[in-house]
Amino acid sequence: MTAIDIVKHALKGIQTEDNPQIVKQKSRDFFWYSPVLKRQLDHVSGDLLVTPKTEAEIRQVLQVCFENNVPVTTRGAGTGNYGQAMPLSGGVVLNLSELNRIKEIQTGVVVAEAGAIMSAIDVAAKRSGQELRLHPSTYRTATIGGFVAGGSGGVGSINWGGLRDLGNVNRLRVLTMEAEPRQLDLVGEDLQKVMHAYGTNGIITEVEMPLTASYDWVDVLVGFDGFMDAVHFSDALGNLDGLLAKEIGPIAAPLPHDYFLRHQKFIRRDQSVVVCMIAPFAMDAFATFAARYKSAEVLYRSDLASEGERTARPPAYELSWNHTTLRGLRVDPTITYLQVLYPFPTQVESVRKMTELFGDEVPGHLEFVRFDGKITCFGLPIVRFTTEERLNEIIQIHEDNGCPIFNPHRYTLEEGGMKQTDAVQLAFKKSADPKGLLNPGKMIAWENPHYDYCNSKNFLFPGLQAL
Amino acid sequence: MTAIDIVKHALKGIQTEDNPQIVKQKSRDFFWYSPVLKRQLDHVSGDLLVTPKTEAEIRQVLQVCFENNVPVTTRGAGTGNYGQAMPLSGGVVLNLSELNRIKEIQTGVVVAEAGAIMSAIDVAAKRSGQELRLHPSTYRTATIGGFVAGGSGGVGSINWGGLRDLGNVNRLRVLTMEAEPRQLDLVGEDLQKVMHAYGTNGIITEVEMPLTASYDWVDVLVGFDGFMDAVHFSDALGNLDGLLAKEIGPIAAPLPHDYFLRHQKFIRRDQSVVVCMIAPFAMDAFATFAARYKSAEVLYRSDLASEGERTARPPAYELSWNHTTLRGLRVDPTITYLQVLYPFPTQVESVRKMTELFGDEVPGHLEFVRFDGKITCFGLPIVRFTTEERLNEIIQIHEDNGCPIFNPHRYTLEEGGMKQTDAVQLAFKKSADPKGLLNPGKMIAWENPHYDYCNSKNFLFPGLQAL
Ligand SMILES: Cc1cc2nc3c(=O)[nH]c(=O)nc-3n(C[C@H](O)[C@H](O)[C@H](O)COP(=O)(O)OP(=O)(O)OC[C@H]3O[C@@H](n4cnc5c(N)ncnc54)[C@H](O)[C@@H]3O)c2cc1C
Ligand SMILES: Cc1cc2nc3c(=O)[nH]c(=O)nc-3n(C[C@H](O)[C@H](O)[C@H](O)COP(=O)(O)OP(=O)(O)OC[C@H]3O[C@@H](n4cnc5c(N)ncnc54)[C@H](O)[C@@H]3O)c2cc1C
Repeated sequence: MTAIDIVKHALKGIQTEDNPQIVKQKSRDFFWYSPVLKRQLDHVSGDLLVTPKTEAEIRQVLQVCFENNVPVTTRGAGTGNYGQAMPLSGGVVLNLSELNRIKEIQTGVVVAEAGAIMSAIDVAAKRSGQELRLHPSTYRTATIGGFVAGGSGGVGSINWGGLRDLGNVNRLRVLTMEAEPRQLDLVGEDLQKVMHAYGTNGIITEVEMPLTASYDWVDVLVGFDGFMDAVHFSDALGNLDGLLAKEIGPIAAPLPHDYFLRHQKFIRRDQSVVVCMIAPFAMDAFATFAARYKSAEVLYRSDLASEGERTARPPAYELSWNHTTLRGLRVDPTITYLQVLYPFPTQVESVRKMTELFGDEVPGHLEFVRFDGKITCFGLPIVRFTTEERLNEIIQIHEDNGCPIFNPHRYTLEEGGMKQTDAVQLAFKKSADPKGLLNPGKMIAWENPHYDYCNSKNFLFPGLQAL
Repeated sequence: MTAIDIVKHALKGIQTEDNPQIVKQKSRDFFWYSPVLKRQLDHVSGDLLVTPKTEAEIRQVLQVCFENNVPVTTRGAGTGNYGQAMPLSGGVVLNLSELNRIKEIQTGVVVAEAGAIMSAIDVAAKRSGQELRLHPSTYRTATIGGFVAGGSGGVGSINWGGLRDLGNVNRLRVLTMEAEPRQLDLVGEDLQKVMHAYGTNGIITEVEMPLTASYDWVDVLVGFDGFMDAVHFSDALGNLDGLLAKEIGPIAAPLPHDYFLRHQKFIRRDQSVVVCMIAPFAMDAFATFAARYKSAEVLYRSDLASEGERTARPPAYELSWNHTTLRGLRVDPTITYLQVLYPFPTQVESVRKMTELFGDEVPGHLEFVRFDGKITCFGLPIVRFTTEERLNEIIQIHEDNGCPIFNPHRYTLEEGGMKQTDAVQLAFKKSADPKGLLNPGKMIAWENPHYDYCNSKNFLFPGLQAL
């Protein structure tokens, strides 16, 4: 009997699946966004899919896998796009989609199991007039645990910053990968040990997150003749302290027209568009603000559309963040994208520079966010892909111009550039996963004892030692 | 019969009062904060106090006063501290404290009559988990109309900016001072015509304001050995995007110990204190953040105090903004204060400079706010008053160092420095109050046709022409 057979046998009573096709399907995420990762990871598959329904079942899976030295790679909904959830060394794919109870909703707080879908949490929270502060554009499919373990920010980050920011996650319950898995309730500085760690440090079973006031956000598309006009508008809108927006994302022509097929009739091909979500009671103020910009043309407002019009179209958040890229890939599978930070206070100038430098080879897509207390923007520009060499060149030019890249063409934590590992992080990994069985291959610092994590790169989730 | 007698007679059916002592009492506000205004305005009194209960009654008052050329000065709760509500030319004091119905509360919006007390609005809004975004520290006494017409910001401005910011007021219903008073519903750019205009432009009868999520805010006092440590802490706290605070106000030693008598036992005399209000579910994050500062000592947390302890003390917001000054004046009536803006991004450096320059002659009191999208601070420093000359010198030194003063020792809109008048503003005044009967003497641009409003001063509420 192979180790996998033993595990499978030992887990009877828990839902498992070893049909290779199904397992392979559940071993994949949106890694194919990247032509680089597509080449590197296309063959990857786990050996056994396990779908526990309770924390007790997870504990059993971990015990058995620990005993038999079988790797465990956790999967939420598999919407990550850096191959984060892909089991490089095979083994068990731990599918948490059925561990999805919403356990408690109080004023300002939700407690949910890790596999709960974010939009489902919001349906429950809405009953008390509340919703999550921020969510990825994969809101309707992604799990809360997967967001915390593999995401960074998204819709709502214009008000609340990102997952990295103290206060955006209250508590994480984690099971360790040991002979006797421990249950840890992490708060405060300890949260960073498992946040954006791709499940290399423990299995998140429960999440406690803050909630904010829920509104029936109005989707608005604003058109501009020039991309830089759209950028100026967005930057100014983000800096309006009294005008509540949940999303501000300018996208350069011709992307909006070419990619937003179900909004296409509103958009000229030469129009750059700002995708916005605005609080309903702020629409007067928004119209007032927009009227200050001679070049701004409001193309679409969901609050003025008929019910039928509205439901025939995706919500604005599914035009934003990596959904812009997804819509692009559907229309033109040869494109790819990058992730850029344009640091405050030169964000607008940096965007202009990159726009002038690359033109339609790298059409702009920005997402305005609050970052260390200031309004600035991330970029998720489309790249008209030719070769990996040119892609790396484009990356280098951004970095040389003071625009750090969080490289979405790398599957390790460190090379992706979002998560800094260090001695504290590594010590935690050693205690929580002494055999290195959790999502092997994703943390260089673990794989390579000579890895120098004291480099000067920009990391979104900084190392723990600095704190 | 005098004009006042005629008015009084014509208004029978409406509550009026002409007992000179009562009228004088209701003709005063907190002007005595300023030794300068105290000297200038101590004698001021209206002739007749009128207390309408409905908009129809106000309309009647305006008609009769217009006909008889009697000035009308509106009064909310009279908590303004620049003599805004003081009837320089006598006449009618229009007391709106009985026009106080809360008419409607929806998701994100309240509609209330102008005389509604802000804390009463919040009691009503709390039923749906909501509260006002921002309020002055006079929350428990001041009216919403008085805040809009005479205030600027306060508790909550760290999240939402000030009244000046588009989106913080949705709509104002105004009655004009004409033979047939018109009822105007102002929205958008027009709001600025009557905001912070001291009632010189029309009588606000109804206010529509946005609401936000309501929490049982935790009062926290954090002690520091040095004022600049407290300032650094506050600046960093304000820039934490995920940590929800409603108030961050550092106050230099020995003020906290000397002025906060009911918190005195927690505070050493040489301790500077940051007064905070923190969301209850953010207290873990707050403790984590505070622990990063070796010099920070949490002196008081209302969530850890007993019910008795808590109710024996004023809420944190009554230690903040101009309540700090008020507590100071009670202990030492010889002091006064200033209002300073320390512009981003040099706010901390500017505070250091002023602190070093003036020492205990001008002990620091800051209020961190969001201002044009950035975190910076206003100052309400205490001034150990000696002479008006020295006070003006202190003002000049601030301005020379790039720290604009909103002079609280002036009773005109323009000299106070918060409100810029211009041709648009003046044209609106001409149409809304053609005889100049509303709160005469407060708008220089009206009194003096040669007034040059095209100066380069910094104004909190900018002129309308610029828009
Ligand atoms: C179209 C599209 C749009 C996107 N938009 C955004 C965006 O706006 N913002 C953003 O941040 N991301 C975005 N992403 C990335 C991704 O969708 C989100 O991060 C999402 O929250 C991941 O959730 P998931 O449940 O799919 O996680 P998965 O992809 O299943 O997992 C993500 C990582 O977390 C690990 N993991 C999952 N669950 C757990 C757990 N319970 N314990 C420990 N480790 C776990 C996995 O092993 C993996 O490494 C987008 C992706 C796509 C394809
Ligand atoms: C201890 C203390 C603390 C304070 N803290 C703050 C603070 O944090 N932030 C802040 O902004 N202010 C503050 N203030 C100033 C003042 O309390 C507030 O601005 C308050 O909101 C004024 O409301 P009120 O009802 O007392 O108005 P009043 O003082 O009665 O009136 C203010 C001005 O508005 C006019 N007015 C009043 N009602 C109307 C109306 N319905 N239509 C037209 N004009 C009208 C009056 O004529 C007057 O010019 C403080 C004052 C004190 C004494």
